[in-house]
Amino acid sequence: MTTGPTRSHFLAEESDAVSGEVREHDALRWHGGKTAERIEQLAVEEPLEIRLAGRRFTLTMRTPGHDEELAAGFLFAEGFINSASELGEIRRVRGRKGAPEPNAIDIVLNVPADGLRARLKRNFVMSSSCGVCGKTSIDSIRRRVASPSDSARVAPAILLALSEKLRAGQRVFAATGGLHGAAIFSLDGTMIAIREDVGRHNAVDKVIGFALTNAMVPLAHHLMMVSGRLSFEIVQKAAAAGVPILAAVSAPSSLAVELAEEIGTTLVGFLRDGSFNIYTRPDRILARE
Amino acid sequence: MTTGPTRSHFLAEESDAVSGEVREHDALRWHGGKTAERIEQLAVEEPLEIRLAGRRFTLTMRTPGHDEELAAGFLFAEGFINSASELGEIRRVRGRKGAPEPNAIDIVLNVPADGLRARLKRNFVMSSSCGVCGKTSIDSIRRRVASPSDSARVAPAILLALSEKLRAGQRVFAATGGLHGAAIFSLDGTMIAIREDVGRHNAVDKVIGFALTNAMVPLAHHLMMVSGRLSFEIVQKAAAAGVPILAAVSAPSSLAVELAEEIGTTLVGFLRDGSFNIYTRPDRILARE
Repeated sequence: MTTGPTRSHFLAEESDAVSGEVREHDALRWHGGKTAERIEQLAVEEPLEIRLAGRRFTLTMRTPGHDEELAAGFLFAEGFINSASELGEIRRVRGRKGAPEPNAIDIVLNVPADGLRARLKRNFVMSSSCGVCGKTSIDSIRRRVASPSDSARVAPAILLALSEKLRAGQRVFAATGGLHGAAIFSLDGTMIAIREDVGRHNAVDKVIGFALTNAMVPLAHHLMMVSGRLSFEIVQKAAAAGVPILAAVSAPSSLAVELAEEIGTTLVGFLRDGSFNIYTRPDRILARE
Repeated sequence: MTTGPTRSHFLAEESDAVSGEVREHDALRWHGGKTAERIEQLAVEEPLEIRLAGRRFTLTMRTPGHDEELAAGFLFAEGFINSASELGEIRRVRGRKGAPEPNAIDIVLNVPADGLRARLKRNFVMSSSCGVCGKTSIDSIRRRVASPSDSARVAPAILLALSEKLRAGQRVFAATGGLHGAAIFSLDGTMIAIREDVGRHNAVDKVIGFALTNAMVPLAHHLMMVSGRLSFEIVQKAAAAGVPILAAVSAPSSLAVELAEEIGTTLVGFLRDGSFNIYTRPDRILARE
C-alpha cells in the first residue's frame, strides 16, 4: 500500500485529538435538595464535512479526532471504496488564510472518473431510494460482503475480559459519560486500536479506517467490540472489514442477528459481568479453553 | 386541525405495534463455564421508506409501530413541514395484491408544488452540502427555531421521578434491553406519551409526531425526556416542537449544550439515582417546591 496514509501519519494526529474531544461547561448539580456549581466535561460533537476531490460528499456529526480514519473508514465500510489503494490523498481543507479548517476533510480517490460516477449513483440509489417494497427488507438494504474467515477461534475467558479492556480504554467516556467506543482486538485479547465518538457508527468507521490505512484489512483473525448496542449497520460495517467475531456490551437488534446469520459472523451480545450471549455461529467460540 | 390523523387513528395502530416490536431468536447463554440454550427477545429493526405523494423521500432504520407518527414527526421536527395542517394524508403503501407493505408509508402534503420543490431543495442543501467551512459549525447546521416558553416551571421532585416513569414505560426495553425511549410529560410529571425505537432520533420523532397529530404542538408547558444521551440533533428536534425543558438519563454533547444555550432550552442531564445536572436555563427549575 503506497498511496494510503501511513501509521505515523495517524499517530501524528493524536496529540491534537485528545484536547479536541472534551470541552468544559458550567453546570448546576442538584442532589439531596441542594445545588452546587461545578464544571462538567462534555464530549465534543461537531459536524465533519467529507469531500471527494473538493466536492461535498457527506456530512456527519462526530467527535473531532482521527478524522482521516473516519473518512477512510466510512468510505470503505459503506462499500464506496474497495481497498486502501483507492485512497489517493486525504487532506485537511484549508480556509482563505491557509489555516486548516477543523471540520472539513478532502479525499482524492484513485478511481477513474466514470467509475466514480457509477459508485456515486449506486451509493445514492442505496441510501435514498432503496425500493424496500416488494422485497424482503433485509435484501433491499444489504450490500454484498464476503463471509468472514472460518478459522478464527476465541476462548470464553478471552471474551470475558474484553468489556473491561474496552471500558478502560475509553478515556473520553470516563471523563464525560458521553461517548461510544469501538475497538479491535487480536484473538488472544490484545487491544489493537480503540476509538470513541458521539456516534456509534463513527467509532466503528474510525477503527475500520485505522485498520484499512495500516494494511490490516481483512481483519480475518481479529474481533471487534462496541460499547453499546448492535444494529444492522454495525454488523454490515464489520462484515465489510472481514471481522469474524463481533461483540457488544448490550443487545443486538433483530436485523443485526439476521444479517450476522446470513453472512456467517459470530455475534456476541450482553458481554458484561462474567456472562455473554452467542446469537450466531457459536463454533468460533471454543467450548474448552 | 381537520386534515391530520386523529388520536383514535393512532390508538388503532397500537395493537399490531406491540407484536411487531419484539422478535424471538435462539441464543446460547454462557455463564460460569457453562452454556445454556435459551430464547432471547430482540428489539425489531426494519427499514421504513417514507414517500411524499408516491415519490421516495427518505429511508430510516426503525422499530415498527407508530410509523405514521414517525413520518409526521420526522417531517415536522426536521423543519420540512410547519404545522399539522400541512399533513394531508398519511397512508400505507399497498403492494401488488393490495396488501399493505409493512415497511413503506406515503404522505400527501397540503403544500403547493412549487413550495414543495423549494423545501426539497432547502432540505437537500442542509443535509448533504451544508458548507461547514468558513462559518462556525453550529451556525451552518442549525435551523431557525423559536425560543420556547419562558413561563414553564418544574419542581426538582417532579424531575427526579421522571427517570423511573420513563423506565417503567419502556416495555420493549424491559423485554429486550435494546431500545431507546422518549417521552412527553406535563409539568406536573404526568406521562402523556412514550415511544421506543432502535434509533434515539426515531423515538423522539415518534413522540413529536404524536404531539403534532394530536394538536399539542407547541409543547410549551411540557417536558421531554430521553433514555440515553443528548445530541445536537435531539435538542434541535425538541426545540422545533417548542419543548422548554429537555432531560436525559445520560450525558449531553458539547453541541447539545451550546444549542440549548442559544435557543433558551433548559437542558438536564444525568437525571438518575436522585440527582441531576442543569446545563442551561436553570430558572425553569424551581428553587423551592
